[in-house]
Amino acid sequence: MDFKDVVMQRYACRTFTSETIPESKIDELLELIRWTASGLNLQTWRIRVVRDPATRQAIAEAAWGQQQVANCSHLLVLCAVHDVLGQTEKLQKALMASGLSEAESAQRVGYAKKMCAQMPPPALVKFADQQVFLALGNAINGAKSLGLDSCPMTGFDAAKVAALLGLPEGIVPTALCPLGYGAGGPTPRMRFAAEDILI
Amino acid sequence: MDFKDVVMQRYACRTFTSETIPESKIDELLELIRWTASGLNLQTWRIRVVRDPATRQAIAEAAWGQQQVANCSHLLVLCAVHDVLGQTEKLQKALMASGLSEAESAQRVGYAKKMCAQMPPPALVKFADQQVFLALGNAINGAKSLGLDSCPMTGFDAAKVAALLGLPEGIVPTALCPLGYGAGGPTPRMRFAAEDILI
Repeated sequence: MDFKDVVMQRYACRTFTSETIPESKIDELLELIRWTASGLNLQTWRIRVVRDPATRQAIAEAAWGQQQVANCSHLLVLCAVHDVLGQTEKLQKALMASGLSEAESAQRVGYAKKMCAQMPPPALVKFADQQVFLALGNAINGAKSLGLDSCPMTGFDAAKVAALLGLPEGIVPTALCPLGYGAGGPTPRMRFAAEDILI
Repeated sequence: MDFKDVVMQRYACRTFTSETIPESKIDELLELIRWTASGLNLQTWRIRVVRDPATRQAIAEAAWGQQQVANCSHLLVLCAVHDVLGQTEKLQKALMASGLSEAESAQRVGYAKKMCAQMPPPALVKFADQQVFLALGNAINGAKSLGLDSCPMTGFDAAKVAALLGLPEGIVPTALCPLGYGAGGPTPRMRFAAEDILI
């Protein structure tokens, strides 16, 4: 599906049919998310796919009762990895596993470490969170490109969602993305005029 | 261009040819950005397109000398609008201009205002910033879909860039996106294994 069609046809879907997405499509979508652009290639995201209806209902309650969390087929919980320096270690191992020499891997990781060292802890957390929104963009555009509907959401109690999913400390739910097949078709969309977004 | 091809072919381009992007393509790209998903539809972004080489060189210097800012064809400076409540007023006017009744517009805007009222000022700023990263995602994917290359960047001195561009207070440079035609082809990309991003 052409990217322009994706952008123009995607909408925030709040009611899904009861149809379940095949797992092969979820895998395809995760692949599109995996290749999201990533600052310093640190990929400071982790994703939980929630299939269990009872868990989704509990998460909906931690999201001001927004029913698209419960009535979707699959729920993605996109988490930020707040231990950004830990990701540099992970990156070094992954680069070497990809066939890069130890010296070249160390050089790339050294640059990432240097940039991280310049950021105070709140800036590192902000950096980690920002990457999740790039991943969320690929999730919602990717979903539409695969014939799925989605709803990007940030209105929820992150601590409650983390507790419900038993997430370790430092893996912080940052965006929810219910997925499924939209019931009733797209709602009308509106954007500010082109000249109003320029400055 | 199919979204999967966009995702797999996009890369962070650090060297551009001297070719200038036609303005019609820039307009097409801005349209893809304009329709980015937006929390509460508040579209808390504003974009400056920098065409002047001297200004781009000055911004490169405020971005630790990263030369893709200077050697690109066009530079997008994606700014967050920190006056989120002000955007609710703008939304009301735009909804009515789109043909929605005053009552229906007021109802939608009322919901946005209620959600904003629950956020303390730092959360509102965070919210505004997050939306910019969704827009950045559409910018870089959109660029590739139009045959352009790009480089998402957050490493720069926002206050200096704001001063260079004469931006008003509350319009905060949040991401840079140099655009052009990549010289030398894509650099090899690596991502963590699929199982390593799940949790």
